[in-house]
Amino acid sequence: MIDLGIIRAGRAVLHVTDLDASRKFYVDGLGFIETESDETHLYLRGLEEHNHHSLLLKKAAKPSVEVMSYKVRHPDDLEKLAATFSEQGYETTWCERGSQHAIGRTLRVQDLSGLPLEFYAEMTVVERMLQRYDLYKGARIQRIDHFNCMVQNVEAAYHFYMKTLGFACSEYTATDEEAIWAAWLHQKPSVHDVAFMNGVGPRLHHVGFWLSDQLSLIHACDVLASIGYAKTIERGPGRHGLSNAFFLYLRDPDGHRIELYNGDYLTSDPDFKPIRWDLDDPRRATFWGHAAPDSWFDEASPVQHVVTKQVVATAEPILKKQKPTFML
Amino acid sequence: MIDLGIIRAGRAVLHVTDLDASRKFYVDGLGFIETESDETHLYLRGLEEHNHHSLLLKKAAKPSVEVMSYKVRHPDDLEKLAATFSEQGYETTWCERGSQHAIGRTLRVQDLSGLPLEFYAEMTVVERMLQRYDLYKGARIQRIDHFNCMVQNVEAAYHFYMKTLGFACSEYTATDEEAIWAAWLHQKPSVHDVAFMNGVGPRLHHVGFWLSDQLSLIHACDVLASIGYAKTIERGPGRHGLSNAFFLYLRDPDGHRIELYNGDYLTSDPDFKPIRWDLDDPRRATFWGHAAPDSWFDEASPVQHVVTKQVVATAEPILKKQKPTFML
Amino acid sequence: MIDLGIIRAGRAVLHVTDLDASRKFYVDGLGFIETESDETHLYLRGLEEHNHHSLLLKKAAKPSVEVMSYKVRHPDDLEKLAATFSEQGYETTWCERGSQHAIGRTLRVQDLSGLPLEFYAEMTVVERMLQRYDLYKGARIQRIDHFNCMVQNVEAAYHFYMKTLGFACSEYTATDEEAIWAAWLHQKPSVHDVAFMNGVGPRLHHVGFWLSDQLSLIHACDVLASIGYAKTIERGPGRHGLSNAFFLYLRDPDGHRIELYNGDYLTSDPDFKPIRWDLDDPRRATFWGHAAPDSWFDEASPVQHVVTKQVVATAEPILKKQKPTFML
Amino acid sequence: MIDLGIIRAGRAVLHVTDLDASRKFYVDGLGFIETESDETHLYLRGLEEHNHHSLLLKKAAKPSVEVMSYKVRHPDDLEKLAATFSEQGYETTWCERGSQHAIGRTLRVQDLSGLPLEFYAEMTVVERMLQRYDLYKGARIQRIDHFNCMVQNVEAAYHFYMKTLGFACSEYTATDEEAIWAAWLHQKPSVHDVAFMNGVGPRLHHVGFWLSDQLSLIHACDVLASIGYAKTIERGPGRHGLSNAFFLYLRDPDGHRIELYNGDYLTSDPDFKPIRWDLDDPRRATFWGHAAPDSWFDEASPVQHVVTKQVVATAEPILKKQKPTFML
Repeated sequence: MIDLGIIRAGRAVLHVTDLDASRKFYVDGLGFIETESDETHLYLRGLEEHNHHSLLLKKAAKPSVEVMSYKVRHPDDLEKLAATFSEQGYETTWCERGSQHAIGRTLRVQDLSGLPLEFYAEMTVVERMLQRYDLYKGARIQRIDHFNCMVQNVEAAYHFYMKTLGFACSEYTATDEEAIWAAWLHQKPSVHDVAFMNGVGPRLHHVGFWLSDQLSLIHACDVLASIGYAKTIERGPGRHGLSNAFFLYLRDPDGHRIELYNGDYLTSDPDFKPIRWDLDDPRRATFWGHAAPDSWFDEASPVQHVVTKQVVATAEPILKKQKPTFML
Repeated sequence: MIDLGIIRAGRAVLHVTDLDASRKFYVDGLGFIETESDETHLYLRGLEEHNHHSLLLKKAAKPSVEVMSYKVRHPDDLEKLAATFSEQGYETTWCERGSQHAIGRTLRVQDLSGLPLEFYAEMTVVERMLQRYDLYKGARIQRIDHFNCMVQNVEAAYHFYMKTLGFACSEYTATDEEAIWAAWLHQKPSVHDVAFMNGVGPRLHHVGFWLSDQLSLIHACDVLASIGYAKTIERGPGRHGLSNAFFLYLRDPDGHRIELYNGDYLTSDPDFKPIRWDLDDPRRATFWGHAAPDSWFDEASPVQHVVTKQVVATAEPILKKQKPTFML
Repeated sequence: MIDLGIIRAGRAVLHVTDLDASRKFYVDGLGFIETESDETHLYLRGLEEHNHHSLLLKKAAKPSVEVMSYKVRHPDDLEKLAATFSEQGYETTWCERGSQHAIGRTLRVQDLSGLPLEFYAEMTVVERMLQRYDLYKGARIQRIDHFNCMVQNVEAAYHFYMKTLGFACSEYTATDEEAIWAAWLHQKPSVHDVAFMNGVGPRLHHVGFWLSDQLSLIHACDVLASIGYAKTIERGPGRHGLSNAFFLYLRDPDGHRIELYNGDYLTSDPDFKPIRWDLDDPRRATFWGHAAPDSWFDEASPVQHVVTKQVVATAEPILKKQKPTFML
Repeated sequence: MIDLGIIRAGRAVLHVTDLDASRKFYVDGLGFIETESDETHLYLRGLEEHNHHSLLLKKAAKPSVEVMSYKVRHPDDLEKLAATFSEQGYETTWCERGSQHAIGRTLRVQDLSGLPLEFYAEMTVVERMLQRYDLYKGARIQRIDHFNCMVQNVEAAYHFYMKTLGFACSEYTATDEEAIWAAWLHQKPSVHDVAFMNGVGPRLHHVGFWLSDQLSLIHACDVLASIGYAKTIERGPGRHGLSNAFFLYLRDPDGHRIELYNGDYLTSDPDFKPIRWDLDDPRRATFWGHAAPDSWFDEASPVQHVVTKQVVATAEPILKKQKPTFML
């Protein structure tokens, strides 16, 4: 068992163009706790989170993804990760303590798919709001759960994350030829901390946040509609066959996709055999049989290069089919 | 105040082609209580219903609607209704006690839109299962709520039901020229016992059944998918702006549309002013902004003539627009 | 069928000693909408209510109940009610339009049990907040549902409300000798607008408010605890066998008891036979078998005389048993 | 970080006197899946569990606890555990493969508190029923979560489990003198796999099973009452301040206590500081302020010796206070 100390998906750093619009969506609509903010930053967390933020929005001219950050167990794990990436020829860069607010030293690296990753061991500890029920509103966001990324070569990413970074696989989608079309990988014993889907990449498809119950997700729809944000609802509510998630997909004011997510299961056991889904099994994508809108397959957030800060160019995926064909 | 003693929507009598398929959908999937059945009849009721059935399925060669039945307060009310209809030139017919199982004498009439109505005062009283929680399953259907019909001339139906039959209006949809495109009318103090929508008619669009909570509706989707009936889910779950209903539309094995319904409000007060919705207000149809599938606008169940038992021919509606245009 | 035009329980007017404490409990904790307030009045309503208030709190030196008010269909109904009460020897008094804020002319009368009643046809219409989901909080109070009163002679009250005022009975509790120990009576087709229980009276036991779902009730407990009001939770959450209510009983800062209530059923039909419960049936009071605390049986709010405004003296009930004996 | 490969609480083996009564309670009432059974064994699992059982009921003359079993990552971990226990002077015993149905080789040991533990790496893999929603009923039990034990010396147990077995602490209760009165310890990143409370011990206080939502717990109360098992409900539903659990405590037909449990949080992070609760903080035990019944503090299941199979004698705890004093 490889153990580089990666615990879980920790935070996303997204560039957005209008912090007031973002605040209305995330805080008023979804019920994120606003830990702190200034003119160019909005630090958000869920109700049970004891770390400073799990979503950092930075004001910028164009929307993009700066990094997807994973929390590691100990600062020494960062060194081990840096060595591992370097050995394999990846360019890494350090953000020293003090260079970013409320977070310790971080390691950044562009992964094999071109995705901007960050690893950190320390983040400012803040008050957990789990029992401040008087502050619950909107979707009652509990905590960050996972990243979902569109990449050109899912199978390569799958092997790297499993063999080099020590992730485990809970479920995957395969083509008729047993090529891996999508994979759900985890460190914490849930369905995933990260998923990869075959598509134009590298792009961030969505960041998933965990809710404690289904009705908070329904209520989020009602609240978003009440504040004039019905148009942010892209897909759902529905049930994924894959992961058993009760889901809702939203597009924030800059088009970043957020998943509200509830219903997965414990994946702690080594004898749990990854679940294989056929690409064209209609119950895989939507257990109830609904088709997803084209935008859900076609659109995703561009990502930055960790060193140049430029948006990374995308390319077509190696498997031809970007969208399943469902026959009910 | 006109009072012909009409209390509420009481039962629907639907013709279906395969009672086993119907049983699987309604009993196994939706959790209806099967009061009684034989080779050609299936009598179903909800968990709180103390009357023998609210849905009667009859085996037939082709699916159609035999009648939509309203319960009246007293057998004398049937005479009053017969007189009222006769005075206005409608053909009525009686089903004497004994001619139908578990129901007393009924009056049948084809209404101004061509819809087959039935009125009854007496139905066999059976055990209420409301506190038999061990029998709850699927959608946990509680009780029948309403009929929704597509008719050629909504405004004419609206006036007849209000002025002659004593219904009250809770909400309505109007065109820019203030023509009534749809109307929600009630006897019991809920949003409706019957609704009329502009469309090819006369047809029954759906029968609505009331659920006590939102999660029963979500669970119904999961159960239907588990038993291989995901394809019966046509639209939803979602929220109607109009009526505030949390809804799910299903198509039974014969194509009859069933709405699972929760979330309306008390309409007991004469100072409650009917709510007007603009036809093209996107929040009217789906508060969350989802578009409904074309089938929901185009398809509906044919109805029988109460005397000839033949299916009634349909015709185009008088208002041109059959489907709203939503711009989000 | 007697019809004096009574539609439903409409509002309660309660005297309280500290409006700020009341506001924290009712608005912050329970999620009532504050329609309006001044230094001595707090006007509250539920999310679906289109009338100005269903709960009026007045600042006073001591807590008491000024009136329990029923809404009638038409101003003329007030005259009919006045005549009916006068014929039977009850003293009535009028509050002319303008003497009370936001409500039309009202008729007040002390009923046979000594309870202060009020009847009104008109109240200011305000915006309904049902679809302002962004304002939902705490218990998400939807609407007023009923009054529950402790009286000396339940059977006398039962007969008067049924025969003279035209209420119908949904459920009742009887002793072994078939004396009526408690009765649930309604005008709107729900389980009750008013209930009477055998006890030291006349007193108001509680005012019931309807919630649309069970989780709002659970959340109310969490929110009340979060704001330091756990001590207001007196009994529940639980299920009444009688009425099938999912209930929570709270004591407001002045000791007035509020019930949060969900789960009853439609009582529109004349063939629905009132359900008889045995006084000592443990499932009657709490379907799940929990015992209620003594305070729930012993304590209730004193009521005023409609003319003298003095608190009405109480006396022991005619049936000896004030509290059931449950044997599980 | 100590790592002996313990993953999570895995199964409880309870002796019961009447398997039919047990089946009615666990299968009909709570919705456990019955994997398999014979005349003297009932193997039960939750809806998401892919292992053969998490609760094994064995027919016996008297109720007692045979073992509480933890799952380990690999068969080699059993050897490491055996060595660790032996080094510290604990008597261990092996149940070889084949000696118990559906489970591999197990290690048994009486721990420092006198509790019978078992460790295993292998259990028969069976179909996961998570998406067989048509089988959901009662409490919709999802999976085993934790054991809660009454022991004489919580602090000693706390140190042994942390330092020797590698558990982490999420929350604890301390006296004014900072003695540890109770502690919640975990391997999987939830609040606990095992908790210890100061009391007459060694005894098993309860086995906790995780539910995916609050309404399943409410529904369990309704179903248990419907089938005549209201008397099994001992405490709740309520919210623990400690662990944030939404809880229900039941007593099975033999008096074994079962907790239905929902609402805890992720404890994956090393910077999560264990939460300290004051013993007499009323919000600790019941966030909503309800007192627990005496039986909850006084009664628990006797445990067996892993070698002699005799019931282990109990003794008074070292801290005097067995029950907190709550002042609201």
